[in-house]
Parts: sequence; C-alpha cells; structure tokens
Amino acid sequence: MSLPARVTIAEVGMRDGFQFEAKPIPTDLKREVLQGLVAAGVPRIQVTSFVHPTRVPQMADAEELCARLPEGDTVYTGLALNARGVERAAAAGLGFVDLSISTNDRHSRDNAGMSLVEAIEEAEVMIGLARRLGIQAQMGLQCVFGYAAPGDTPLDRVVDLARRYALLGLESLSLADTTGMAHPVSIQRVVEEVQSVVGDVPIVLHLHDTRGLGMANVLAALQAGVTRFDASMGGLGGCPFIPGATGNIATEDTIYLLEAMGIETGIDRRRVGAITRGLEAFLGRELPGKMHRLDVKSHAS
Amino acid sequence: MSLPARVTIAEVGMRDGFQFEAKPIPTDLKREVLQGLVAAGVPRIQVTSFVHPTRVPQMADAEELCARLPEGDTVYTGLALNARGVERAAAAGLGFVDLSISTNDRHSRDNAGMSLVEAIEEAEVMIGLARRLGIQAQMGLQCVFGYAAPGDTPLDRVVDLARRYALLGLESLSLADTTGMAHPVSIQRVVEEVQSVVGDVPIVLHLHDTRGLGMANVLAALQAGVTRFDASMGGLGGCPFIPGATGNIATEDTIYLLEAMGIETGIDRRRVGAITRGLEAFLGRELPGKMHRLDVKSHAS
Repeated sequence: MSLPARVTIAEVGMRDGFQFEAKPIPTDLKREVLQGLVAAGVPRIQVTSFVHPTRVPQMADAEELCARLPEGDTVYTGLALNARGVERAAAAGLGFVDLSISTNDRHSRDNAGMSLVEAIEEAEVMIGLARRLGIQAQMGLQCVFGYAAPGDTPLDRVVDLARRYALLGLESLSLADTTGMAHPVSIQRVVEEVQSVVGDVPIVLHLHDTRGLGMANVLAALQAGVTRFDASMGGLGGCPFIPGATGNIATEDTIYLLEAMGIETGIDRRRVGAITRGLEAFLGRELPGKMHRLDVKSHAS
Repeated sequence: MSLPARVTIAEVGMRDGFQFEAKPIPTDLKREVLQGLVAAGVPRIQVTSFVHPTRVPQMADAEELCARLPEGDTVYTGLALNARGVERAAAAGLGFVDLSISTNDRHSRDNAGMSLVEAIEEAEVMIGLARRLGIQAQMGLQCVFGYAAPGDTPLDRVVDLARRYALLGLESLSLADTTGMAHPVSIQRVVEEVQSVVGDVPIVLHLHDTRGLGMANVLAALQAGVTRFDASMGGLGGCPFIPGATGNIATEDTIYLLEAMGIETGIDRRRVGAITRGLEAFLGRELPGKMHRLDVKSHAS
C-alpha cells in the first residue's frame, strides 16, 4: 500500500465544533484548550471564525482570542466567509486565513444566503484581498462530494473552481465533505481530478464522519497522495442546516489510524485526548470519537 | 481502485451481539428478527452458538431456534467452540457450522480456558468431526491482529494454522479482529500471506469497530481481494473479557460503504435498519451504527 510518511493535521474543533455549541465557551477556556493543543504538537489550528457575532455568538471573541495566541511555530488560522472577515483576520494579526464557499447552489443559499454565482465572485474578492493584506489563504470548497445526495455537486464545477482559484495564488485548497457524502471511490476521483489542475497547491481534506466513512475516506485520500487533513477533538462539529451532519473526523482517531500505519503526525494523541475529555466534562456530554476514551483505559495490563 | 463487484455479508448479531445482552431475548423475538433478515435478503446468518447454556444463557434456545428456521436459500450457521458443539449443530439440522479458536495463547486461556496447544488440537478434532457429520465448516481464527496490543499474535503462527486447517477441508476461513487491533496495513499483510497458503478457500473477515477503523479495514480488505465479511445489526456485539471491545462492524454501515462504491450485497439496508431500530427499542439503548438511524431521516426533502 502506497502511503505518505508524514501527514499534517489541522485542528478545527475550536471553530467547526465550538460554533454550534449552545453553552457559551469562555475565552479563557478557549485559550486553555489552545495552549494544550500547542503543547500536544498540533501544527495548525483554526482558532476562530470572523463572522457576524449575532450569527455565531460563540465566535464573538475572535479578536480577543487572536490577541492571546501562544507563541511558537504553530500555524494559526481563522475562517472568513466574506471580505469583511478577511479584513478582520488580517487586522487581528493572523498570517493565515481559511476562506470558504459552497460549490453547491442550494447549499450556498441555505448556508450563506448567496447564489453560487455570488459565492464564486466573493471567493475571488477574498483571495485578492488576502494577497493585498499580506496573509496566506487556504481556499475551502464546501459540499464538494454532494449536499443532499452523493454526487449532486458536479465534479466539473469543482475542478473548474479549483483551477481558477489556484491561479489566483493559494497556500492550499481544501475540499470539504460538508454533509458526509464522500466515499473512498469519490474521494480518489475528486482528489485526482482536482490535483491535476492545481499544480503544486496542496489539497487538504475536510471530512465529516456523518455516515461512518471518515476513516475509510482518510485511507482512500492517503492512497491518492493527500497529506493534509482537518480534524476536530473528539469529533466535535456539525452543521445546523444539515440533518445528521454531525461531527468532523475525530483528531485522536485520525492520529490513531495514521500511527498504526506508521505515518507520523508529530502530535501526542493522548494529550489531545485529555483536552477532549476536559471539553466533554465542560459540555456535559460524550463526544463521538473513540480513542480519547479508549486511551485512558489500559489494554495491556 | 480495484474492488470486487459483489460482496457476501454474514449477519452475526444474533450470536456475537445477543450473547452478551443482559436482558433475556425470547426465542419468538429471535425468530422474528431472523425472518426479517431473510426478507431483507441477508444471504448468510449465524443464528446461534452451541455452547453450554450456563455459560451463555442467551444461547440456551439454540436447538429450539434451529427447529424454526425460515425456509429458503439462506445459509444458516451456528458457532461451535468444541466437539460437543459441532455434534449439537449437526443434530440441530444445520448444514454449516462456524468453528472458532484463538491464535493467541493468553486470549485462549482468558476466553476459552484452553492453552494454545489445546485449542489447535481441538480445532483439528472439530474440523474432522464436521466432515464426518456431513456439515460444512468455516474455521475462525480469533485475535489474528493482536489481543492486548496490535501484532502480539505472530503472523507466522496464523499462516501456519491457516495452511494446516485448509488442508483438512474448509468451506471458508475466518480471520477475526477480536479486539479491534487491525489497521489497513495489517489487514493487507495478513490477508495476502494467508491467502497465499489456503488455495481456493475463501477468506472471511470478522472485524470489530473498537477503535473506529472498521470501515477503513473493510476498504483495505476489499483492495486485498476479500469478498466476505461478518457484520452485526447496528454494530451489536463485544467481548466481556476485553475492555472496550465493543461491537462488530455495523451491517447497515458496511452495506452503505459497499453500495456507495458500487458493490452489490443483495441486502436491503433499510429493512435491516428497521430490525435494528426494533432491537434498540427492545434493549432500551442506542446501538453504535450510524445508518440505521440516518436512513429514517430524509436528506433529500
């Protein structure tokens, strides 16, 4: 089996997870989680999103949190969905911004209140703005593998947008399985087609484990040459507009899969698991990942 | 990606799942589940085990249930762990018996109270007895991918036993990841090595989703040429001697993965899911699979 020697995991739970939690998460707790993730060796962390605070109250402290980032080599990013968000990310001092638009018209309207045509233009504006502001941009394409049904986003469109945005200058391109519609065959097909048009721009996969195929999709992506993945502590996450779209792939479980196959991440899985268990205690519920719970039990007594 | 066109799933929840349930499951309910599985098109069902009723009270009705099997083409099997069990399976009128021994000395002692040497001899006795009694035997090797830690069962031993038993005449050979220690790389390595010594005897994989790698392991096995898998409704199952060894791979989720990739199973996933939801209502708890719950929600409204 042809597999990479090393993979980069970006922790997105502080954004994709926290944003949907009903219980307000204090900035001090976020800072503590962030410190723990850095100490665990997580190389890239999406710390917040620059969206309107009335729409996502959990992210209202974006600037405050960005003013308190631990020092070091960690790549900190924030999500921006429009030009205003990019400006805020730059003003907050971030060197990286994660841009995102949908590639599915219906999802774009449901989720962002924009038609696909408007979203495509907004993306170009955001990429240009990030460049002018001197921050590196990851462009994220949502619903690449489908929205309401697998395959209801045309692959031609995804490939066309990927080519177009790559030409504008990207740090990386993220393909998101927003509703958990991807499967190993579609992962390989989409990754191969997209990689063929984006040159040296690395592809990042943003997977949700909605239908239980998360780890199988990671395996298929690794075989297709992908070396960057988003994941969230304990599988935090979801999308309020999509029934059952619960949870990114869990960081600990993803690391376990990779380590078992001899692939390095540089992350101490057990330290991430300890943070996750702390969050479970704070949130008052069990998160869907497995390894953060199994790692506390002794299997080799 | 090289994948088979068709896969055979054996439903093992009525044995590997029911055996550990605290609430007694009436024979009439088992009969109803069985009827539902047959109607859903499940081609092979492990209906019970022929073990001592004081050890596994849920299986005390093995003979009674076998006297009431629905007619048709379905392959019905029962698990036997010793010669007495094989005799009972034959006397109960089954044409197929699933034999099983551990390949890990410590697991064999913990789980079956036999040393590895005793287990290996018992297996030979069982295979010979099944042949004399005119019933087809699947030989199952437990803990092939490890017991307390991945790889603590030597692959040489597994290969040696597989060769030895295949020569005695088997309908199939099952490799069990009893404690959920397998990962895609070990799956491919073990399957390739074992297949090379068992000739035409088909390999069956019996996977547990303990560490979340179940579907990734199915994918790796498919790529290695495996076309037969055990699975349990909703992911029922576990092993009382192994902390955290919860659940076979879920039948519905496995079918979803296969169907998504264009692989036929002949099983109506939604009908299996309805049975699983009925069992959840009876048992009073949610089972770990995903698709039996997601299939009731409409994603394409």
